[in-house]
Amino acid sequence: MATIRDTPLVALRLEGRALVALDQTLIPWEERELMLTGAAEVADAIRRLAIRGAPLLGVAAGYGVALELQRDPGGLERACTTLRESRPTAVNLAHAVERVRTAALSNQHDPAGAALAEAMAIHREEAAASDALAAYGAEFLAGATRIMTHCNTGALAAPGYGTALAVIAEMARRSELEYVIATETRPLLQGARLTVFELRKLGIPHQLAVDGAAPGLIAAGAVDAVVVGCDRIARNGDVANKVGTYALALAAHRAGIRFVVAGPTSTIDPASDTGEQIIIEERDPREVRSIGDRPLTLPDTVCRNPAFDLTPAELITAIVTERGAAAPAAVMSLLAG
Amino acid sequence: MATIRDTPLVALRLEGRALVALDQTLIPWEERELMLTGAAEVADAIRRLAIRGAPLLGVAAGYGVALELQRDPGGLERACTTLRESRPTAVNLAHAVERVRTAALSNQHDPAGAALAEAMAIHREEAAASDALAAYGAEFLAGATRIMTHCNTGALAAPGYGTALAVIAEMARRSELEYVIATETRPLLQGARLTVFELRKLGIPHQLAVDGAAPGLIAAGAVDAVVVGCDRIARNGDVANKVGTYALALAAHRAGIRFVVAGPTSTIDPASDTGEQIIIEERDPREVRSIGDRPLTLPDTVCRNPAFDLTPAELITAIVTERGAAAPAAVMSLLAG
Repeated sequence: MATIRDTPLVALRLEGRALVALDQTLIPWEERELMLTGAAEVADAIRRLAIRGAPLLGVAAGYGVALELQRDPGGLERACTTLRESRPTAVNLAHAVERVRTAALSNQHDPAGAALAEAMAIHREEAAASDALAAYGAEFLAGATRIMTHCNTGALAAPGYGTALAVIAEMARRSELEYVIATETRPLLQGARLTVFELRKLGIPHQLAVDGAAPGLIAAGAVDAVVVGCDRIARNGDVANKVGTYALALAAHRAGIRFVVAGPTSTIDPASDTGEQIIIEERDPREVRSIGDRPLTLPDTVCRNPAFDLTPAELITAIVTERGAAAPAAVMSLLAG
Repeated sequence: MATIRDTPLVALRLEGRALVALDQTLIPWEERELMLTGAAEVADAIRRLAIRGAPLLGVAAGYGVALELQRDPGGLERACTTLRESRPTAVNLAHAVERVRTAALSNQHDPAGAALAEAMAIHREEAAASDALAAYGAEFLAGATRIMTHCNTGALAAPGYGTALAVIAEMARRSELEYVIATETRPLLQGARLTVFELRKLGIPHQLAVDGAAPGLIAAGAVDAVVVGCDRIARNGDVANKVGTYALALAAHRAGIRFVVAGPTSTIDPASDTGEQIIIEERDPREVRSIGDRPLTLPDTVCRNPAFDLTPAELITAIVTERGAAAPAAVMSLLAG
């Protein structure tokens, strides 16, 4: 049985009958752990972004179903619905819920035990996927020493070292990285809060920039490549990722530098032919109007707050997964065999 | 004599022997007026950004010199120095100070009266330029009903209705605008604080978005055109403007919608052949690390904080000035005749 490699940061772990998760809303200022013992608590932590990052959401949701079954043997379907609805765009989450649900339904003798075993399997698989993806990504980007990344895609977003940030960590392990530019990633500042925190833990030199500054920095030659994560990949290689990604892809394309999307193959959605079929969720306008309790504008200002944007396949150099790298148009080939 | 047209918002006005200016550091939450009676007070308001926006800085500095002369007939040179040093990179400010100084020195009979007349002339000229620019811009954009803009370019930045926001106000006056999307404009949030405030005063429906969301909204068809201001225009039509502008231009170009730059011809810099010759100032990293006294990241994080970015001429549909609209490559023709 594969074990989960030690990382400088563990975003969630199973402890007895609880899922112990770092409350990511408090990072970088405080490292406080949440003890979550059922589906509703896990769903709540997901909704308020205490747990976030597509692969981590899958793992957390899997455990959420399993823990609920331990507490309430009749609670399977309700737990699955609650967790699925906690973050509707996250395809990993729906996948994981379905896997754990199927495992429970397939084992009449010990559905709760089967569910927990399946949730743990998902966790191990994701950690192994992170390691494999990191190696493929670092190989693909050999020679690049100045990297830009967006949002948070590290150990706080996925088991192991994460996705895009795992690639960067592996690049740093293999040779010297000059620096990483992290974008702050408004509205929720995952770059400023989480990626800066992780890069510091990893000992990688880094600079923080506002989102609006990133395309100009790319045009000015500040980085050799851009590496981002992904929330969903369509069959044609279009990618939905954290809002702000598209601008980086446009700028990288025009500057002629590599724009690499890193994510597990579980992010590929065979049901979406192109990005246009991916529904972009709009989140609470209060995220735009304020930071925490500090208002940034007049209180009743109407806001647009799409959580994601779409990057067309033709702006993407490669999609890197745990099964290797592919041109976006060939991404479905990674699911075969 | 031309008079200054009534606007819903007057950022500064002369009242007896005082310059009355809105304190822009308090907007949108409070409309408090400052009574400034001499050069040192005006310089202080400029230094702490209570008065901002290149054209508005020129007008304020002109009045600052004139008011000081009314109070102290021997204070001309000291007043000029104090005001010039209050914001050393602002070209309009230095120009206005020199014009008022020359007027005072040229009139031995009533230097204070001549200075005040010149300061008022600058004010009227800037307001008339705003009106002319607005009319040309609205004509160029006829038919567009959903507009995106960046930073603040309205009555708080320039006498009259401003520059890019003056175009939008004129479009709203001529026909119905469906809505304006204002980008928040990190790091200093001029969009969230000032543009939202002005759009509300103008009664124009509007939505606020984070900077990173704007390119995706453009790609999704949310607006018909983008209108922005400019800080400097090179001979070839490349434009330096508030950081974040370049991403909007890239997205507008790819979406095939109009990207219009609005500014007075005084923004054209015949000394810069291309944008590459324009030096991009990097500002204090604390602007990126925090908003006011609220930290956004770890306190000693290294930041990149370019104040502007460059938009290449080929991404710009037209440059609109008080002398008319031109293709970027033909911008120098606006200075002739």
